[in-house]
Amino acid sequence: MFRTRRTLSDGREIIYYDHAPTARDAADRRDLPTTATLSQRRFDPLLGEWVVYASHRQTRTFLPPADQCPLCPSTPGRDTEIPESDYDVAVFENRFPSLSPRHADLPPHAAGAPLTPLRDGYGRCEVVCFTSDHNSSFARLDPKRARLVVDAWADRTAELSAMEGISQVFCFENHGEDIGVTLAHPHGQIYAYPFVAPRVATIAGRAAEYRQSHGGNLFGDILVAEQASGARVVAANEEWTAFVPPFARWPYEVQLYPHRRVSDLPGLDDAQRDAFAALYLDVLGRFERRFAAPMPYIAAWNQAPTPRAGASGDWWLHMQLFSIRRAADKLKYLAGSESGMGVFISDTDPETVAAELRDLG
Amino acid sequence: MFRTRRTLSDGREIIYYDHAPTARDAADRRDLPTTATLSQRRFDPLLGEWVVYASHRQTRTFLPPADQCPLCPSTPGRDTEIPESDYDVAVFENRFPSLSPRHADLPPHAAGAPLTPLRDGYGRCEVVCFTSDHNSSFARLDPKRARLVVDAWADRTAELSAMEGISQVFCFENHGEDIGVTLAHPHGQIYAYPFVAPRVATIAGRAAEYRQSHGGNLFGDILVAEQASGARVVAANEEWTAFVPPFARWPYEVQLYPHRRVSDLPGLDDAQRDAFAALYLDVLGRFERRFAAPMPYIAAWNQAPTPRAGASGDWWLHMQLFSIRRAADKLKYLAGSESGMGVFISDTDPETVAAELRDLG
Repeated sequence: MFRTRRTLSDGREIIYYDHAPTARDAADRRDLPTTATLSQRRFDPLLGEWVVYASHRQTRTFLPPADQCPLCPSTPGRDTEIPESDYDVAVFENRFPSLSPRHADLPPHAAGAPLTPLRDGYGRCEVVCFTSDHNSSFARLDPKRARLVVDAWADRTAELSAMEGISQVFCFENHGEDIGVTLAHPHGQIYAYPFVAPRVATIAGRAAEYRQSHGGNLFGDILVAEQASGARVVAANEEWTAFVPPFARWPYEVQLYPHRRVSDLPGLDDAQRDAFAALYLDVLGRFERRFAAPMPYIAAWNQAPTPRAGASGDWWLHMQLFSIRRAADKLKYLAGSESGMGVFISDTDPETVAAELRDLG
Repeated sequence: MFRTRRTLSDGREIIYYDHAPTARDAADRRDLPTTATLSQRRFDPLLGEWVVYASHRQTRTFLPPADQCPLCPSTPGRDTEIPESDYDVAVFENRFPSLSPRHADLPPHAAGAPLTPLRDGYGRCEVVCFTSDHNSSFARLDPKRARLVVDAWADRTAELSAMEGISQVFCFENHGEDIGVTLAHPHGQIYAYPFVAPRVATIAGRAAEYRQSHGGNLFGDILVAEQASGARVVAANEEWTAFVPPFARWPYEVQLYPHRRVSDLPGLDDAQRDAFAALYLDVLGRFERRFAAPMPYIAAWNQAPTPRAGASGDWWLHMQLFSIRRAADKLKYLAGSESGMGVFISDTDPETVAAELRDLG
């Protein structure tokens, strides 16, 4: 993996990840104004969670036509976010980030709300372009390119984890218009949060309790049981197993676990990275073939909190891949029970979903 | 309020709530087969939450044409879920419920998953028809009818709370196709869960901690601060205040609190019920007028767990009303950050939303 750092005309960083050494010296010819993002976060005293406010994002680019795609390489006639005329994998700071640089002079609480602590919305949001081919998708990458994306995720995680004040690095892909994706070009995102994400905090707490009460690793014991049973395994190779969790909450949900525990992406060795790329492409292909209609999905890396946020303890890196499509012509909406009370009602069952996906091999 | 209980041809219960004494003796002329629903629930050992499986619901009625609406009164030529030729408010057991009667002989865990406890999906799901007028909406009910709905909610909550094994009663309305509503007729739903809902469990835990550390009522202190500040108050009357929470996580979110604490709907007295109906209609009208496009919403009553599930402690009944519409032509999707990590990113800010809604009075 060959990495080149450059700077865009408004000061944002862009990092190229290449298969082979390649000169990446094209300058950003645009005269972009520096964007002033002023995100906030406020603490919800009822649920005990931070909420991020990024109201400047209302004006962000929304499904531009393909010939105006900001993630395609630049051409002599058109300058995009990526100055080069081609690239393998490119990562750059989001122009419309949810999380912003430090900004000072905020009062300690939201105005007139002493129970709602207020902080700046510090953090960093990056865009990860998987390929320069606008019409491709992650599922259609070749294994070598998928591996390069894994390397980029790992490299960015290591660097962002070392940044002052960052507690959680989240690499993910939102895929499909049905899930609100605003740019069709194959890409994912990385959020570096200034707090441990609620999902990770909850799971880490339960893994610690499990260690105390059972003496084992909660993730590892789940993985071993799924491997032994096989009822919900979708696919596996020497290093990874992909299974529908017996407690899946999404209509189509697969989790991918490495057999050898690591707590985050930088911890993966070469064999694990190659094997992940192979298995993930396999599973994404099954997702794509499941219905004639497009399969929207969210692919969410669950990593340990950063070292500065505390010991990674028992954390076991895994990918949670899930879709809201529940049938050929139906989506799952999060309505009253899910969004109001936090009770998920599933219209599918895990064993059936696993069998369907297995049969699509 | 006048209540009449009847039984539909497949054994489900229907309850009419009338403004004046009315004979409700129409028989269900259909020959409906008894539905065998076999919901399950499984415990997610990572998040520590129950997930309900109701895969039989895949075949439920989906946006039927208006002349086949199952929630309209029956006519000589067409039998609906409601045998009467007219009604004020009618509540009946859902024909496609997410939660089902008791069914026995389940193994203690999901097959091959010793860490995933399995139980039947016991509970009850009811449909609440607000009016016989197919083309109306809650926002267009007159105050007297809205009050009758409050009485129906309270009456059903009292009865369902007394049912064996029920820990949480949730009265709610999903409104609008954008939020996945499958029937256009003005109606809401009631879920009687066999466990305390995750949202309520979390908030109750934090309210108890707050009592210990601050000596006050968390809900009450939030309410008093909002009343004093006024910055986020949308509307208020003698008994209730509607405000945008300073920590709102939805693009449009309003919470309605009674000034005098009660823990659940049956605890509301006459004055509180009338005043809620008036204020809620006011706020719903503001929601409707905010955009030219329809405003989808979820209206979620946050009640204390049932008495059998534990002491209601400091719980303060409130309504959480929220929409995923973030602009005239844009919806908020729960994507990677929200659905993957549990971190909500808001594109609006609470003070601006409150001012917009105040101006629509």
